[in-house]
Amino acid sequence: MTLSIETPAVLVDLDVARRNVLAFQAYADRHGIRVRPHIKTHKLPQMAELQLDAGAVGITCQKVSEAEAMVEGSARIRDVLITYNILGEEKLTRLERLNTRVTLSVVADNRTVVEGLSAHFARTEKTLTVLVECNTGADRCGVATPAEAARLARLIADAPGLRFGGLMTYPPVGAAAQLESFMREAKRLIEADGLEVPSITSGGTPSMMQAAEAPIATEYRPGTYVYNDRSLVVRGVATWEDCALTVLATVVSVPAENRAIIDAGSKVLTSDLLGLTGYGHVLGRDDIRIDQLSEEHGRLVSDGPIGLAVGEQVRIVPNHACVVTNMFDAVHIFEGGVPKEKWVVVARGRVL
Amino acid sequence: MTLSIETPAVLVDLDVARRNVLAFQAYADRHGIRVRPHIKTHKLPQMAELQLDAGAVGITCQKVSEAEAMVEGSARIRDVLITYNILGEEKLTRLERLNTRVTLSVVADNRTVVEGLSAHFARTEKTLTVLVECNTGADRCGVATPAEAARLARLIADAPGLRFGGLMTYPPVGAAAQLESFMREAKRLIEADGLEVPSITSGGTPSMMQAAEAPIATEYRPGTYVYNDRSLVVRGVATWEDCALTVLATVVSVPAENRAIIDAGSKVLTSDLLGLTGYGHVLGRDDIRIDQLSEEHGRLVSDGPIGLAVGEQVRIVPNHACVVTNMFDAVHIFEGGVPKEKWVVVARGRVL
Repeated sequence: MTLSIETPAVLVDLDVARRNVLAFQAYADRHGIRVRPHIKTHKLPQMAELQLDAGAVGITCQKVSEAEAMVEGSARIRDVLITYNILGEEKLTRLERLNTRVTLSVVADNRTVVEGLSAHFARTEKTLTVLVECNTGADRCGVATPAEAARLARLIADAPGLRFGGLMTYPPVGAAAQLESFMREAKRLIEADGLEVPSITSGGTPSMMQAAEAPIATEYRPGTYVYNDRSLVVRGVATWEDCALTVLATVVSVPAENRAIIDAGSKVLTSDLLGLTGYGHVLGRDDIRIDQLSEEHGRLVSDGPIGLAVGEQVRIVPNHACVVTNMFDAVHIFEGGVPKEKWVVVARGRVL
Repeated sequence: MTLSIETPAVLVDLDVARRNVLAFQAYADRHGIRVRPHIKTHKLPQMAELQLDAGAVGITCQKVSEAEAMVEGSARIRDVLITYNILGEEKLTRLERLNTRVTLSVVADNRTVVEGLSAHFARTEKTLTVLVECNTGADRCGVATPAEAARLARLIADAPGLRFGGLMTYPPVGAAAQLESFMREAKRLIEADGLEVPSITSGGTPSMMQAAEAPIATEYRPGTYVYNDRSLVVRGVATWEDCALTVLATVVSVPAENRAIIDAGSKVLTSDLLGLTGYGHVLGRDDIRIDQLSEEHGRLVSDGPIGLAVGEQVRIVPNHACVVTNMFDAVHIFEGGVPKEKWVVVARGRVL
């Protein structure tokens, strides 16, 4: 089937996305876990509404400008967690404006960030909720120990303009035990200090169906689950049929019997490997490897004849759906197997 | 020095860019090579004008929509080569419009593309110039042999609505000898068939200062040379002082003595490795490796104490400048060492 859509393009199957969202929501409901999807995967207010309809308590964003785009894009988004250390007067002013519009919380993993937030929000009418980010093994951001978490919780609780909102982590895959023991100890120390821990929020699509193995967490922030991608299929977490986002590309050259070139390169698929070999999966063609990308070309190779003709379309499941979303101004929404409309990716490129 | 620019941001030093452009133009002038810069690196009409001022004969674009944005953005861009196999009625209609506005040429490496172009341009007033793309070792697009190049040249010359414009290649680094022998034989065959070869165009920044070693080529299409990047410094083609594009980022967390986290991740630096280890170079800090990116975080590690504080700014030379340009809606232009203005990256995200 050749689609009359100019390529390269991102196609989103809304039926598949809805099924993915409902499946995790059902699991979370069964285990009493609140769901707060990370919108970085879709960057679409409409998709956030679909997640809220399914039962999500709010959304997660990574940057202030991303949160602004989402809140601007849907009046139904009323509860936003920004899982980021926010610094600098411009961003704090934007944050203040957001805080008057929605239920907002942010995170901090160090004293400088807490002091910056407090210096700003001490002068505003509404206090800002701040969670402590904890490192449960991913070695990115986060305080290193439960004792540090408790110290920072106390600092937040005592800081003018701030309210302590709980604990946040982005754990490595399969780290339920570490997560549980870190958070249990941090909670004990914080409560011993006379504070409540309103929320313990964890995340990550690969481990989401094991979220209940860390019962200390009250909330989960899956992102990629709405679309899935090649990395999740290779990990055995999803099947190709669960992949809601695909890239439609056209073969522009077949310069050798075993090689074809498509009009989607790193400006579409990105160079994200996520530990895999190759840059995506051509649906229906297990024999093909996308072994090389330049900015506007993708190279498809096969051990045998490639069997593709110039002008033919292929559909590709990218390694990493979230980053592909960020490369497009708009995506094509399919429902019932047919193109329905185009949605503008309003939160694309929001790095501030 | 802390700049009062919200981070992450792309800074472009116009003095360095101008020096880079002039240096290659001087080399090309000395050797009688026409310069047709590839604008993918900057995607800025203003920067194309700087290149034209230096002596460029026109510009190179990779996609039709990219060419549209550049032509729309500057009345001084009057000569455009799109080095791409163009297919499909929507793109051909856009191409036709461009062809009425500027001196336009495109490439083809197969019969299907030539026939599609001819079917469209046979019905238009102005013929379209088409060059044959040749594979001189990069194994991406391009006809495989000089004999094939000659056959396709003849097909173009005989096709209604088209004019044969010469030969185009994007050779691998250091392939002057292959390029020379391929093009010499192709030119011989084409001329023996009674056709002229108006242009032989080659490209690639890494080998640009050896362009004269393939004297058969009449034109060169450097892209990255305007900005340079870490990949070119590591190859010994440029120095850090020649890097006109840098990413300004802020340290948001120092969660361990040897680790710092910045607010620039793959949405800024991209995952392009270009064969390198790590995701960029922190200026002035040879000891630091950017060993991991997530979408909004970059991880900096050192063997010793990282010596960075939360809130501190760092400047990074990315692995690959061209792809970073594509991640930003606007860049900060510096002249004389101070921020001057913001330029909108009008050709960003133009994948069609």
